[in-house]
Amino acid sequence: MNDAITDLQTLIRQPSVSAKNQGLVECANLVAQIMRNAGIETNLLYIDNLLKVEQEDIASPSSPPLVYGEVRSKSNPNGKTILFYNHYDVQPIEPIELWERDPFSGSVEGNYIFGRGAADNKGELITRIKAVEHYLKKTSDVPCNVKFLIEGEEEIGSIHLKEYLRLYKDKFQCDGVIWESGFVDTSGRPIISLGQKGILAVEIIIKGPCRDAHSSLAALIENPAWGLVMALSTLKDNSGKILVENWYKEVRDFTDEETSLIDKEPFDEEALKKEYGITNFVNNAKGMEVKKAFAGIPTCNISGLVSGYIGEGSKTVLPSKASAKLDFRLVPDMVPEVQFARLKKHLKNHISDNKENENKIEIRFLEAEPAARTSVNHQFVGIVKKAAIEVYGEAIINVSSAGTGPMYYFDKMLGVPSVCIGGTDISNRTHSPNEYMRIDSLNKTTKCIAIILEKFAHTEK
Amino acid sequence: MNDAITDLQTLIRQPSVSAKNQGLVECANLVAQIMRNAGIETNLLYIDNLLKVEQEDIASPSSPPLVYGEVRSKSNPNGKTILFYNHYDVQPIEPIELWERDPFSGSVEGNYIFGRGAADNKGELITRIKAVEHYLKKTSDVPCNVKFLIEGEEEIGSIHLKEYLRLYKDKFQCDGVIWESGFVDTSGRPIISLGQKGILAVEIIIKGPCRDAHSSLAALIENPAWGLVMALSTLKDNSGKILVENWYKEVRDFTDEETSLIDKEPFDEEALKKEYGITNFVNNAKGMEVKKAFAGIPTCNISGLVSGYIGEGSKTVLPSKASAKLDFRLVPDMVPEVQFARLKKHLKNHISDNKENENKIEIRFLEAEPAARTSVNHQFVGIVKKAAIEVYGEAIINVSSAGTGPMYYFDKMLGVPSVCIGGTDISNRTHSPNEYMRIDSLNKTTKCIAIILEKFAHTEK
Repeated sequence: MNDAITDLQTLIRQPSVSAKNQGLVECANLVAQIMRNAGIETNLLYIDNLLKVEQEDIASPSSPPLVYGEVRSKSNPNGKTILFYNHYDVQPIEPIELWERDPFSGSVEGNYIFGRGAADNKGELITRIKAVEHYLKKTSDVPCNVKFLIEGEEEIGSIHLKEYLRLYKDKFQCDGVIWESGFVDTSGRPIISLGQKGILAVEIIIKGPCRDAHSSLAALIENPAWGLVMALSTLKDNSGKILVENWYKEVRDFTDEETSLIDKEPFDEEALKKEYGITNFVNNAKGMEVKKAFAGIPTCNISGLVSGYIGEGSKTVLPSKASAKLDFRLVPDMVPEVQFARLKKHLKNHISDNKENENKIEIRFLEAEPAARTSVNHQFVGIVKKAAIEVYGEAIINVSSAGTGPMYYFDKMLGVPSVCIGGTDISNRTHSPNEYMRIDSLNKTTKCIAIILEKFAHTEK
Repeated sequence: MNDAITDLQTLIRQPSVSAKNQGLVECANLVAQIMRNAGIETNLLYIDNLLKVEQEDIASPSSPPLVYGEVRSKSNPNGKTILFYNHYDVQPIEPIELWERDPFSGSVEGNYIFGRGAADNKGELITRIKAVEHYLKKTSDVPCNVKFLIEGEEEIGSIHLKEYLRLYKDKFQCDGVIWESGFVDTSGRPIISLGQKGILAVEIIIKGPCRDAHSSLAALIENPAWGLVMALSTLKDNSGKILVENWYKEVRDFTDEETSLIDKEPFDEEALKKEYGITNFVNNAKGMEVKKAFAGIPTCNISGLVSGYIGEGSKTVLPSKASAKLDFRLVPDMVPEVQFARLKKHLKNHISDNKENENKIEIRFLEAEPAARTSVNHQFVGIVKKAAIEVYGEAIINVSSAGTGPMYYFDKMLGVPSVCIGGTDISNRTHSPNEYMRIDSLNKTTKCIAIILEKFAHTEK
């Protein structure tokens, strides 16, 4: 059996930043090789050719390949099938200067392995592969049928996953999906999450003069950075409430069952505050408010802001352009495209008060995914929970994570439940500098996944 | 006589960006060499040692040298002395990608010489040197005494000029200052400007979590980019009026004489709009409103804005920091330090509504200069005007430029009038990509400066 750490290092050392289309095919091939070495029948799937046959005039989407793996159980071929959904792409490494080690080094120090993707999602992926490899090397078989669906665009909103699910629907048929990742809380308890918020990411660009002007011209020329600031300031109030008309129209309250689960869920407020060096949460939220906000409140976040001179010292310039990247987290029943139309209407209305800027605002749709939630009463949830308790002694059910993924499409297109379970610390800096994975956590998660396979094999079809 | 273009190319090819402390000493030495070649007695002045003697515990300001030049008139040694104030430093070249040629190439194409500093201020400086060289090579003398004061920190607010003026006050004694630059309008008429707006440049930094967080945490963690947007949005109303308490307290209306001059001053609104690709001015200003705004309205400009991820694609990040650079243009009687205190008070008051951000806002003072105006009735103004009419056929008197420089200190510390005259096109992209100088303009300005020397020699002491 190949060493989990060595395999994880191999993957970390191959940059695969989907936002920059960097090293994706290379990484897909490395993943396939590791899977084949483990004994998993693996191949790369593409959508370009299939789409071309269907729609002759399609502009080639040229998406990175999806790594597909399959192991049919010899002893239980007509039993249940589990599908592991993971991704081999990673977030950009910026801000680079805050990394204490090369982000693509995969360096090991004690119980930690560092690097972009160490947890999200290369580390979690390795636990799935190793769990399957464990059975194959020991018994030349697996307890239940296993499939792997490993995409390369998760960090840019899984922009082609829907197409893959549609085109390869038969291949992906299964009875339950183990989601790409899951958290372990500060007391070492796994958090079995059953849902995900949706997302709508946009870019707002305001154009001013056709080139940068000397700032003395601010007496005469509208500054697009001011246009941007004023437009953004209309989006939220001080409490964080989004002021776009009808933004909350489809949002429903938590059910009593959900509220009860949220109430039971531990949440270490002080640990999170300490981790981020803050003294209060938004709106001074505490207790249930905090947990409800995390699981079910729509947000509006500025993820990027840029205009003019951002170097050292000062430069007296009136910039020709200003732009902001925003991401809105959505909850079940909010439709990203509808929310986008509402946002556009709001911004256009605001800008039209200021004739100079009319037609000079551009609102780009960057990515979107609807929210999803698996019912806590599903049999599959019970199996994962039991396996987790065997390994960790305890397990927490979480109604919905605050993060986003394409769970909605698995529910809608394959009609199967998804459950998140994994070994990622809450504080392990996914998407941030100095991301890491704990090696003991890597091993525990591998064990938990192995037990899930075993238990799933013995449930009735 | 050395070729003006060759000398200007030599200076452009030496980057001298004061905001980045790049190449300043090297450029000062090149300027000194060109001046010595022209026959001007030249040396470099420093303040560090002198200041150290005065204040033993001073932290060395390590400012770049000031280039000082002097030519005493043999035929008229007790006559008037003119001082040329110029600078050898330049603005940063960003955004680099918009330059069509290497910004430090000094490439000549037809009537144009391109490069950072081609006009501001290396081109203008060359006209002064060449005018003096013209007399020295022809007559081995100059009509009146001449001094050069060429600093290296103009583009960062002349931060040590005041010290230089104080420490070398006797050396700089003179009867009139020809300012570092002056504009020529689209009809080729020189604009003799008698004043400058002041400036207050600041940086506002808001700190959030101690490191970047995943944007799903926006449900709980205050985003400093939102803090910045909301703080900035309180600074101005839609008409451009600054909302900081008492901001306009010391601002006085134009005198009748100033209003009459402003009324006479031509202003090609359509040319300016075309140049910058805009259809309206701020507040839809027209005619006198435009000219008054340009000469005498305080502004608040965003020159830089940055937070979070500004690369390609999207990144779901909640940034740990957000910052903005602002420059406020001031008019006579506004004291930069007083305005800065008013701004700080305003921002602290705003932020204190939001307890989370208390103590996390930092307001940095970047640079400042008060405004200044020379009286139109001064004899020196009349001389410059007559010389300009001889060369250009026509000349325009401008009450105040919209730009900023350290004119205030010459008035206050040397007690002499300053007049701006030069050969810079209004549209020649100073501070922007593709800055240029017209070669015919370079020659005409040299001629005009030469005539000023001649006329100044014949006025009564």
